[in-house]
Amino acid sequence: MSHDFFNIISREEFESLLASFSATDAVQVPISDAFGLVLAADIISPEDLPPANRSCMDGYAVNARDAFGATEANPAYLECCAELKVDENPDFTLKSGECAAIATGGTLPEGADAVVMVEHTHELGSGTIEIRKSSAPGEHAMLKGEDAAKGDTVFRAGHKVRFQDVGLLAALGIKNVSIHKKPRTGIISTGDELVKIDSPQKVGTIRDVNSHTLRCLVSEAGAEPVNYGIVRDELEKLKSTLKQAVAENDLVLLSGGSSVGMRDLTVQAIESMDDSEILAHGVAISPGKPTILGRVGGKPVLGLPGQVTSVQVVMLSLVMPFIRHIMGQKNAFSTAARPLVQAELGRNAPSKQGREDYVRMKLIQRENEIPLAQPVYGKSGLLKTMVQADGLMIIPADTEGLYAGDTVSIWLI
Amino acid sequence: MSHDFFNIISREEFESLLASFSATDAVQVPISDAFGLVLAADIISPEDLPPANRSCMDGYAVNARDAFGATEANPAYLECCAELKVDENPDFTLKSGECAAIATGGTLPEGADAVVMVEHTHELGSGTIEIRKSSAPGEHAMLKGEDAAKGDTVFRAGHKVRFQDVGLLAALGIKNVSIHKKPRTGIISTGDELVKIDSPQKVGTIRDVNSHTLRCLVSEAGAEPVNYGIVRDELEKLKSTLKQAVAENDLVLLSGGSSVGMRDLTVQAIESMDDSEILAHGVAISPGKPTILGRVGGKPVLGLPGQVTSVQVVMLSLVMPFIRHIMGQKNAFSTAARPLVQAELGRNAPSKQGREDYVRMKLIQRENEIPLAQPVYGKSGLLKTMVQADGLMIIPADTEGLYAGDTVSIWLI
Repeated sequence: MSHDFFNIISREEFESLLASFSATDAVQVPISDAFGLVLAADIISPEDLPPANRSCMDGYAVNARDAFGATEANPAYLECCAELKVDENPDFTLKSGECAAIATGGTLPEGADAVVMVEHTHELGSGTIEIRKSSAPGEHAMLKGEDAAKGDTVFRAGHKVRFQDVGLLAALGIKNVSIHKKPRTGIISTGDELVKIDSPQKVGTIRDVNSHTLRCLVSEAGAEPVNYGIVRDELEKLKSTLKQAVAENDLVLLSGGSSVGMRDLTVQAIESMDDSEILAHGVAISPGKPTILGRVGGKPVLGLPGQVTSVQVVMLSLVMPFIRHIMGQKNAFSTAARPLVQAELGRNAPSKQGREDYVRMKLIQRENEIPLAQPVYGKSGLLKTMVQADGLMIIPADTEGLYAGDTVSIWLI
Repeated sequence: MSHDFFNIISREEFESLLASFSATDAVQVPISDAFGLVLAADIISPEDLPPANRSCMDGYAVNARDAFGATEANPAYLECCAELKVDENPDFTLKSGECAAIATGGTLPEGADAVVMVEHTHELGSGTIEIRKSSAPGEHAMLKGEDAAKGDTVFRAGHKVRFQDVGLLAALGIKNVSIHKKPRTGIISTGDELVKIDSPQKVGTIRDVNSHTLRCLVSEAGAEPVNYGIVRDELEKLKSTLKQAVAENDLVLLSGGSSVGMRDLTVQAIESMDDSEILAHGVAISPGKPTILGRVGGKPVLGLPGQVTSVQVVMLSLVMPFIRHIMGQKNAFSTAARPLVQAELGRNAPSKQGREDYVRMKLIQRENEIPLAQPVYGKSGLLKTMVQADGLMIIPADTEGLYAGDTVSIWLI
C-alpha cells in the first residue's frame, strides 16, 4: 500500500484547475426549455416593451394635468370619450377635459399619460366621470419602452435563466435562445465489492449506492446523467469503460477506489488514454481528500471517493459547481448562491488546520431565536449521517475549529 | 364594472381550503426517479445495514483489547493472519494477538471489533504488525445494523425524497418506492389581448407571458405542466377548454382575467361545470388579491391574476406550496423550507394593514455586514421588477410596514 499518491492542493487551487475547462457548446432551445440553463450569448431587446403606453389598472386613461389636485371633496370632472377594448389600438387623441375607459393591459390613446383607478372614480351618467384622486404623469401606466428599450442588453452571456427571465423573454417575443447544452455526464462506479442494488444482501458485497446518488446530484446541477454501471477493479475493463464514457459524454465521474490500490487504478486508467493528463491528485478538503482530476482529450474526468457519504459531500462542494461552470455559468464556484441559515453552534467543532472541513449538521428550531446547529453524531461512513443532516457547516482551512455559542452559517442541502 | 365579487379571506384561510384537496395517486417508481417526489408509504428497512461489521478505513482489523493503550513509544505487536479482500466474507475467527489486513468496505472477521488505520501501523516483516495507536471497540468500523436495523422505519409517508435518501434506499436494496405521482397541471392563459410569443409586436396586443412562466414554475415545484394555450374572453370557448383541462389533469391553472369582466368569466366557467363549486374568491395578499379557488369534480381549479408579475408572486406564495401539497408533502404550506437571508432594510416599506405584502427586493452585498435589502423601484406590472429582484420580503397582515434599519428576512427566489 503506497501513500505517495497525494499531492494535496487547496480547494481554491483545485477550483482553478476545474475553471480551466471550457463550457459546452451553444444550442438554440425554446425559452421554456432554457429555464435553469445558462445563456451562451447576450440578449438584446429587439423592440420597445411595452410598444406604447399601457394601463396597469382598470380605470380611466387621462392626461394627468386634468386630474391634478383632484380629491373626494374637490373632484375633477371629465367626459368619457371612449370605452377602449383591451386589444384596441386607439386611433384618436385625448383632448383636454376628456378621459377614456380602459382595462388593465389596454393601450392609452395619444394625449393620455396616466390612468386613474376605477375605485377613485364615479360615473355620473351621460358620459361624465367624477375623478376623486389626483394623478401624476406615468401613474398606473407603463410607458413605452419602460420594461425594455430597443437595443438594451437585457441579459448577458453566462446568466442562468430564471422563471422571471423566461417571462421577460416571452414578452419580448423571443421564442428561442442560445444556451450551453446540458453536459452529458458519464457516471461509473468502481469496486470489486460492488453489486447492483437489487442483489440480495450478502456479507462481503456492498450495493452500488453511488450510481444512484450521483445520478440525482448530476441532474440537480442541471446536467444529464448517463450511468455506466459497475466496473470491477481491473485495469483493462476500467480503461474500456472510461474510453467509451469519455467518447459519449462532456464529463466523466468515476467513484470508487475506496482502497488505495483502486485509486492508483483510476490514475492508471486516465493516464493510459490518448492525450491525457492528471491535473490534480488530492485536495485539502474533508471529506474528499483523495479526489482526482484528469483530462482526457480536452474532457474532464473526476475520480471521486468511493465512500458513499464522502462522495456526496464532494459532489456538493466541488462537482456540482463544476457542472454549472461547464454549463457556462459565471462565478459558478462562488459560494454566494448557496442557501444559508444562521445558527448557533451547539458544541465545539474542532478541525485540523490546513484543510477545509464540511461538517454534517442538524438544525434544531427554537422559539424567537436562531436555530441551534448540532454536528450529526456517528461514523462519517454511515449513510444515516447524511440523511439526518439538514446542512453542512464549513470550517475554513485556516482555523482550528469553531466554538459552541458561535454564530455559524449552515449551508442547507 | 362590478366590485362585489371579492369575498376576501386571509392567506391562512385560503391555505386551509387548498389543504383540503387530497394528494395524487401513488405509483411505484425506481428510486432515482423518486428524487424530489414524495413518499406515499413508510419505508421499513428490510434488513440490517451493514449486514456485518465493516471497515471504514484501510488498515488492520483487530480486537480493540489487543491494541488498547498502544502508542508510538509503546506499540502493540500483532500477527497478521489474513489479507482480506474487500469482497471477502471471512470464514475464520480472529484470535487474541492476531490482526487481519483489511480495506475500506471490507468485512471484519468474527472476533474483530475495530480497525487500526494503516497510517498508525508498521509492517515489521514475517507477518508482524506494529500497532502505534490505541483502539476502542467500534473504532473505524461500522457495526452490523448501525446504519439501519431490520424493521426500522427509515422514512415516513409524506417525506420528500432527497439525494441522500436515494443513497440509503439503494444501500438497503430497495429498487422501487411508492410515491405520489407528479400532478399533471393544466395551464390556460385567457385574454382577448393575448397573442403567441412569436407574434410580431403590435400595439393593442400583449404576448402570452404567463403560459411560459407558469410552465417553469410548475415544473420547478415538481409537477408536470401541460399547456392549453390562449383562450379568448368568450365563455363557451373557456368552458370547453376548462372541461378538457380538468379531464386531463390533476390541477388546472387559469391565468388572466386582468379585467374585472374576465374574472367573472372564470367564475362562470367554473360554476358551469358539473359538480363544481367556488371555494374562494379573493385572498388578502398583495399582489394576488383576485385569486380564485374552485373545485370541479374533486379537482382544484385556480384562477390567477393575469398581470404578468402578480401571477409569478402568487405562484411562489400559494400555488407552488399547493402543488407540493397535492404531491403528498407534509407541511407543504410551512414557510420553514424557504431559503431566507437576513438583510438590513434600506428604506421604510409601508403596507396596508389587513393584507400580507410580498415586496420585490434587491440585495446589495456588503463587506463584513449583512446585505442591504432595497425594494425594487418601478411599477409592479413591469417584468423587469421581477427580473431585478433577488427575493421577496413579506410584510405580515397585522403590521403597517417595516422600517429602514430593521433586520428583515428576504425569501430568495
